[in-house]
Amino acid sequence: MKSDYQRPLDWRHGRIDLNHGAGGRAAAQLVDELFARCFDNDWLRQGDDGAALPALPPGHRLVMATDGHVISPLVFPGGNIGCLAVHGTVNDVAMLGATPLYLAASFILEEGFALAELKTIVEAMAAAARAAGVAIVTGDTKVVERGKGDGVFITTTGVGALPPGRSVSGANARPGDLVLLSGTIGEHGVAVLSQRESLAFETQIVSDTAALNGLVAAMLAAVPDGAVRTLRDPTRGGLATTLNEITRQSGVGIELDEATIPLQPQVAAACELLGLDPLYVANEGKLVAIVAPEAADAVLAAMRAHPLGTQAVCIGRVGVDAQRFVQMKTRLGGRRIVDWLSGEQLPRIC
Amino acid sequence: MKSDYQRPLDWRHGRIDLNHGAGGRAAAQLVDELFARCFDNDWLRQGDDGAALPALPPGHRLVMATDGHVISPLVFPGGNIGCLAVHGTVNDVAMLGATPLYLAASFILEEGFALAELKTIVEAMAAAARAAGVAIVTGDTKVVERGKGDGVFITTTGVGALPPGRSVSGANARPGDLVLLSGTIGEHGVAVLSQRESLAFETQIVSDTAALNGLVAAMLAAVPDGAVRTLRDPTRGGLATTLNEITRQSGVGIELDEATIPLQPQVAAACELLGLDPLYVANEGKLVAIVAPEAADAVLAAMRAHPLGTQAVCIGRVGVDAQRFVQMKTRLGGRRIVDWLSGEQLPRIC
Repeated sequence: MKSDYQRPLDWRHGRIDLNHGAGGRAAAQLVDELFARCFDNDWLRQGDDGAALPALPPGHRLVMATDGHVISPLVFPGGNIGCLAVHGTVNDVAMLGATPLYLAASFILEEGFALAELKTIVEAMAAAARAAGVAIVTGDTKVVERGKGDGVFITTTGVGALPPGRSVSGANARPGDLVLLSGTIGEHGVAVLSQRESLAFETQIVSDTAALNGLVAAMLAAVPDGAVRTLRDPTRGGLATTLNEITRQSGVGIELDEATIPLQPQVAAACELLGLDPLYVANEGKLVAIVAPEAADAVLAAMRAHPLGTQAVCIGRVGVDAQRFVQMKTRLGGRRIVDWLSGEQLPRIC
Repeated sequence: MKSDYQRPLDWRHGRIDLNHGAGGRAAAQLVDELFARCFDNDWLRQGDDGAALPALPPGHRLVMATDGHVISPLVFPGGNIGCLAVHGTVNDVAMLGATPLYLAASFILEEGFALAELKTIVEAMAAAARAAGVAIVTGDTKVVERGKGDGVFITTTGVGALPPGRSVSGANARPGDLVLLSGTIGEHGVAVLSQRESLAFETQIVSDTAALNGLVAAMLAAVPDGAVRTLRDPTRGGLATTLNEITRQSGVGIELDEATIPLQPQVAAACELLGLDPLYVANEGKLVAIVAPEAADAVLAAMRAHPLGTQAVCIGRVGVDAQRFVQMKTRLGGRRIVDWLSGEQLPRIC
């Protein structure tokens, strides 16, 4: 067999150049020595421009979700863009009630990006995928000139299997349902912002980035199909935006009780300092569940028994509201509308 | 129902700002008024962070492929990044012998990008998807600051259904098989380069960008399963790189006959002017097929009967070669090795 490459990649000093995206020998070398090695599985080893995968279990429907990741900085307390890109898409698939199975990964690299940094990110992706029980089965790499990108952007697309008869959607909430939250809010956004702005808080705030498919499986197993109406991970735009999306989809209102929403004291302090409302700050390892009232205790118990749901609580109730408002009873006993933000609170948070 | 937006998007003068990627009201408006409207289908209308799709036909395996598109310029003779992003991924799914069904689309937009230009691109995507018979069922939009991107990058991920018993892979070529090519080479790369460099040729050269799933279906229907060993679209790196990938995967050699490889005269002239070898220039609407010798006539006839394969020809033969070389009998009767290029001939060609 001919030797395909002159010499191995230089992981200490090497940098991405335009050749790595050109489909020639340098591109093949990057795939072989980095992506194929880290993500190693039967489907990647096929070496085709796509993956031929097994059939889904009989009767199971297909679920598909995609997310581009452009977070800045690439590394933050608690993770980096690599694990985030796995968690974000695994979670989107899981939130539809499906079991995430396979991921595709597309990398857009900027010329000059350090190979060492890319390796760290790809290794984090591989570890996150293994931990979540999904395989990264196909991918693509492009390179853009210096100043036309920002280090690395990663788009992941996930597919999963949805068992027959199950429907979990933002459109399924009904008046009388309860709103559950799996834990404290705001860590991811505050962790990224503090890193970006080089802010030092007394206690380091760490992103909550995590794959939630295990938690979802435990919740769905605890009650009959249909009792869990909606699952959603409150990422960009935070809890407030997610709840507004649900009221819009389902044509209902939601009433929250502020005192029940868990918040780490250091996150509360940081938000106050930064002028952020934690209700709008991104999370990457939390979920909101809208559940039938009679199922709420069982779902909460299942959540609290899982490591990612120990602080799960009921934070409110779905009501009838032609205006589809999310309202909140404040700590002081007042009442306010928790509206959509018109725009950006924190850019490039995921 | 409350009014979700202050006023409609300004398609004439509006520009992307960071709010459009923030998951708030502006982001929802962009999704509603552009993506959901252009791509309209039942699954997008679900409004969730992913799509719950039907089950695949019984026994069919899942095929998945992803491609990031970073082409520059965004618009070129014969198409734009939108239709290219559909064709590229539809073709990758089809090249595994599967029927492409669904696409996910992830957009990374640069702050300041004109809404009018984005609309043109998204409309081209929608038209290309309809023409190819696939639905764009889920998506994501991110915005990066000015100078951290380049207008728009689009990653598309496709899934398809692979019938039981069918295996089409770059690893399946066997000595004695014939190498078929669906038509002339080099148009896409030359069209993009001429646009980029503002070169004017006597005849305008137009990209061949096209969805090949219909052509593939006709080819596969013409012969028993197994007779079509390999299908591959020679995109980045061109025909030469694609054939080298196949010899590497299958552990064989390939012998080409240069005189049989079809080339438009104006592409030949442009390549000579630009110092490009057309064997390495990207195509976006051509395919290479490796077929069992006894099936070659039937496959060729099926190709020629299809509008995208009228100029299909046999260009060579698979042989035994421990060194996995692609060799070519030149027009002058000589013989040369058609090697991998080490790097970039044309950056950002797709």
